[in-house]
Amino acid sequence: VRIEIVAVGTELLLGQIADTNSKWLGENLAANGVTSHFHQAVGDNHDRIVLALRTALARSDGVIMCGGLGPTQDDITREAIAEVMNVPLVRDQAIVDRIASFFEARGRTMSANNARQADVPQGATIISQTAGTAPGLVCPVGNKVVYAVPGVPYEMTEMFERAILPDLRARMAETGEEGVIASRVLRTWGASESGLAESLQDRIDALDQTGEVTLAFLASGIEGIKVRITARARTLRDVTELLDKEEVEVRRAIEQRLGDIVFGVDDETMEVAVANRLIAHGLTFGVAESLTGGLIASRLVNVPGASAWFRGGVVAYDSQVKFDVLGVPAGPVVTEPAAAAMAEGVRKVTGADVGLGITGVAGPDDQEGVAPGTIFVGFALPDRPTETRQLRVPGDRERVRQYGAISALDLLRRTLDAPPS
Amino acid sequence: VRIEIVAVGTELLLGQIADTNSKWLGENLAANGVTSHFHQAVGDNHDRIVLALRTALARSDGVIMCGGLGPTQDDITREAIAEVMNVPLVRDQAIVDRIASFFEARGRTMSANNARQADVPQGATIISQTAGTAPGLVCPVGNKVVYAVPGVPYEMTEMFERAILPDLRARMAETGEEGVIASRVLRTWGASESGLAESLQDRIDALDQTGEVTLAFLASGIEGIKVRITARARTLRDVTELLDKEEVEVRRAIEQRLGDIVFGVDDETMEVAVANRLIAHGLTFGVAESLTGGLIASRLVNVPGASAWFRGGVVAYDSQVKFDVLGVPAGPVVTEPAAAAMAEGVRKVTGADVGLGITGVAGPDDQEGVAPGTIFVGFALPDRPTETRQLRVPGDRERVRQYGAISALDLLRRTLDAPPS
Repeated sequence: VRIEIVAVGTELLLGQIADTNSKWLGENLAANGVTSHFHQAVGDNHDRIVLALRTALARSDGVIMCGGLGPTQDDITREAIAEVMNVPLVRDQAIVDRIASFFEARGRTMSANNARQADVPQGATIISQTAGTAPGLVCPVGNKVVYAVPGVPYEMTEMFERAILPDLRARMAETGEEGVIASRVLRTWGASESGLAESLQDRIDALDQTGEVTLAFLASGIEGIKVRITARARTLRDVTELLDKEEVEVRRAIEQRLGDIVFGVDDETMEVAVANRLIAHGLTFGVAESLTGGLIASRLVNVPGASAWFRGGVVAYDSQVKFDVLGVPAGPVVTEPAAAAMAEGVRKVTGADVGLGITGVAGPDDQEGVAPGTIFVGFALPDRPTETRQLRVPGDRERVRQYGAISALDLLRRTLDAPPS
Repeated sequence: VRIEIVAVGTELLLGQIADTNSKWLGENLAANGVTSHFHQAVGDNHDRIVLALRTALARSDGVIMCGGLGPTQDDITREAIAEVMNVPLVRDQAIVDRIASFFEARGRTMSANNARQADVPQGATIISQTAGTAPGLVCPVGNKVVYAVPGVPYEMTEMFERAILPDLRARMAETGEEGVIASRVLRTWGASESGLAESLQDRIDALDQTGEVTLAFLASGIEGIKVRITARARTLRDVTELLDKEEVEVRRAIEQRLGDIVFGVDDETMEVAVANRLIAHGLTFGVAESLTGGLIASRLVNVPGASAWFRGGVVAYDSQVKFDVLGVPAGPVVTEPAAAAMAEGVRKVTGADVGLGITGVAGPDDQEGVAPGTIFVGFALPDRPTETRQLRVPGDRERVRQYGAISALDLLRRTLDAPPS
């Protein structure tokens, strides 16, 4: 069953609110094996809602319309559906009574407008309201179906799970289509999208033969590139098995060509990857930042439970702060020795087990004769000599800082995985 | 000119990422007087992209396609546009060379796949790339137009402003459709949307009479609420005059009811507002952060030229770091005296003129018997006693930190404006 989502509301077109409903519906349709080939957003205009709905019905088996069921004059989804069904709207007195009692229970009087929410296209059935005032609708159009739900997220999700999903499942059972689709995302840092694609070309070719598993790449800016594994099967258990098996293959292929670039799965951020390693080794952490100016620290404190291992940091933006607070020797500060001294200094100042120091040039101008995008990172760990690394990152000032922060965290992740040299 | 946005990417349909591009484009088209009646999202499938594009062209004057210009096999927007234009793709050697030198500059070799990004539908013109590798496209289709831009947000927004918007303006001038539409945004912090709307109700009523100037409110999460003034007139000069005049009225109405809550205009962030005041007073700055963990410092170093006034900071996440590095007296650390001591301590440690200290509870649990969302801020300024303020902010851990950071900067802005008490 292919379902198109049509989000209704001029505020969506004007970008005044983000269309989180379509995202949620897309995710939940996919997780239940329902295909969605198109989404549309349309404003509060009768003719254009009708056109969007007809367009959607022509290329899908059904449509979920989200929004435009409220009480005001610009809520016209009901009218548009009735036109497409070619039937009149009929006011349902039972719904009018229910809305009136909803208002009464809150000590308010129902305004006349609210009765519009009881208008039902002839032949449609109701998804009764539990949270707000507007009921949802299930509207047959030939052998296809139009579902209408309110745009308020918690009303929409509740009706989807209670009424739409069971109805879709019944339709899928009829067509013998049933199944589950699920995805898993491997997050990488440090490779190009094309390099990743090449490392996985053999897997993609092999998977093309069977069609039950697919791979896709998703460039995510400063968060790196994601590899998405999607599988389809009859049961959740079968899907999970397919994902597990393919994850092993994908990791092996990437590792072989590009090394240890997979840092997390699904929602696991780089800072979570670092935190997990610090916790596993029982180490506390402190960071000295120059060009990143607190970015690394602020990412780390976002990890729940950070207080168990994060001691703090020094933002040593001015050179004098590097000398006075961190004990960096006077002289040039965009150098490997300065990064090493920052790492050792912050380790001492914060009393942490592990210290990271980062210095470099964000740009736009050179500093100490060093070009923008040049970054030095130092790592001071217990029982081994302080290590340093040089990085070159692209982009403007803001991106140099963002790339510098995640690159330094990635190097820390690898350093914590490596045995002392 | 009516423009439809078509976002390309299976990850959008699967709800794996939010379609922030369409929201941004919708907002920026509207701000420039361009109408958008429909948005679509479509997956990485040739036939369906072609169908979405044909559907969009049939009901609009032009289309902005976002995404699917990358180097991998599932990036097929170029092919789909060529099919709709009914022309072949031609590889542009100049673009191939530019991409190759992009890789060379980073010490990497261009893979064969990347050359696909140099494929151009015959008859299309290029929007040259400044940030990534894929150029954008301007493709004539009869008397309509298809723009294609990468899905990476900063590449998309840059190309929109540099190439698409000027092209749209030229088209609008040709059709004699408009004079000039321009907007100005006043950024506020600390008022509710309904409070702001009430303070401006008289202005809105007065403007409704004429129709040449409109006001809109745009809730922008942690960046506060924006009041957008939009004016339409025959020439840029007339529009600017209307905007200048209305800005005075709007500021007066807001000030009267809600006080000094306008901190910036258009792109002027809170950190820029603070920087301007530090520069005006010739003061340097240092910050000591506990719950915000480097957020304030990292916002400040984003201001161009920050090195002239930003000395650095201490992220004192662990209490011991507060005691040892900042000289906070041993004892409870989520208090007004601790915030004051942090401000004075960081002023001394960084050698800055002005010190800010911030401590509080991000949650989810109480700390020292203090509830989540409680924040204490201290300000140490030359020639006046250290001041402290208590704040209560709503939300989860992440939002408490973000609200705390901007609230503290807003208090600093007001403190720098106030004469010593």
